[in-house]
Amino acid sequence: MSPTDIEFWFDFSSGYAYFAALDVEALGRRVGRRMRWRPFMLGTAFKVTGARGLSSTPMKSDYARRDWERIAREKGVPFAPPDDHPKVALAATRAFYWIEAHDQDRAATFAASVFRAYYAGALDTSSPEAAAAHAAEIVVAVPVELAAGIADPALKDAVRATSEEAVARGVFGSPFFIVDGEPFWGWDRMAMMERWIVSGGW
Amino acid sequence: MSPTDIEFWFDFSSGYAYFAALDVEALGRRVGRRMRWRPFMLGTAFKVTGARGLSSTPMKSDYARRDWERIAREKGVPFAPPDDHPKVALAATRAFYWIEAHDQDRAATFAASVFRAYYAGALDTSSPEAAAAHAAEIVVAVPVELAAGIADPALKDAVRATSEEAVARGVFGSPFFIVDGEPFWGWDRMAMMERWIVSGGW
Repeated sequence: MSPTDIEFWFDFSSGYAYFAALDVEALGRRVGRRMRWRPFMLGTAFKVTGARGLSSTPMKSDYARRDWERIAREKGVPFAPPDDHPKVALAATRAFYWIEAHDQDRAATFAASVFRAYYAGALDTSSPEAAAAHAAEIVVAVPVELAAGIADPALKDAVRATSEEAVARGVFGSPFFIVDGEPFWGWDRMAMMERWIVSGGW
Repeated sequence: MSPTDIEFWFDFSSGYAYFAALDVEALGRRVGRRMRWRPFMLGTAFKVTGARGLSSTPMKSDYARRDWERIAREKGVPFAPPDDHPKVALAATRAFYWIEAHDQDRAATFAASVFRAYYAGALDTSSPEAAAAHAAEIVVAVPVELAAGIADPALKDAVRATSEEAVARGVFGSPFFIVDGEPFWGWDRMAMMERWIVSGGW
């Protein structure tokens, strides 16, 4: 990773991360920075902050659903996650890191594709078989090889370590960006982050 | 209150509400809506959501402080709350509603003034005496009358009922706006709210 990269930390089951994912690559091109997609398990951070997910917090859950659907209407994009949203997207997260290790350039493509498929209600991000089959469409690998890779204890450990790294570096929400050592939390900080980069910080 | 008013719910000890307070009246003028300032005790909502204030949540507290100071630098405004921020701003909240009952037009002026003074480190919003003295500068009343008014059990009950009304209507954070029945949570939703009003909703 280059020190000028923008780290884009997210959990696939974060509605606001989905909207961020739709725009991050364009933002990166505008500011001349490479976007490094870093899926992690947000639950790891919740254990430290004591926070709960939006969807399991009274009052906030109804608001978040309304807000996500309102954002989707304004942007003209779908927002139709599975009925049991938020899924625990560990399988899709493991598939991402397996792909990154084998075909780094395709990892971001896979992540963006997972977001689009999940929020169209068409991908079970918690299923290793579904994640492997979806990944196989992106990286031209056989699903069985991917499924075995996702199940590899070494990969599982690496993914767990990545979530712990996120927390150690102050990442407590999703989406969460780090650029030039500066943290920006939330889809609604992307415009500020862009101004911050363009102006050289303030 | 007119049905076209924008309700601006906030806790005086909310850093993001301070930044909102600096801009809400200009927003209201742009869209031709009156802003109705509604201070309440955010702790009442926290009892329902189980959430904690940003400043008492691990990881988030450090980030929020950094974010507030960053916003203040970009906007070129002070951000210097007292060392024991966030104070429990019940006295200032009661003073607001006492003023609103006696001199409605000055209530928003008082609230804006409380924000500016608190975030310049110069007002103890938890002190009835300090709140009364500050209010007296705005409404041309004698501080002793204000102090007695703030201590009136009927006013205290009304303020408590206002916080409960906020929660009953889905207000769980600060700042929180309701316009034409539509809720918008957060300083970072003000631009969206303005687009929503101007476009007639979407």
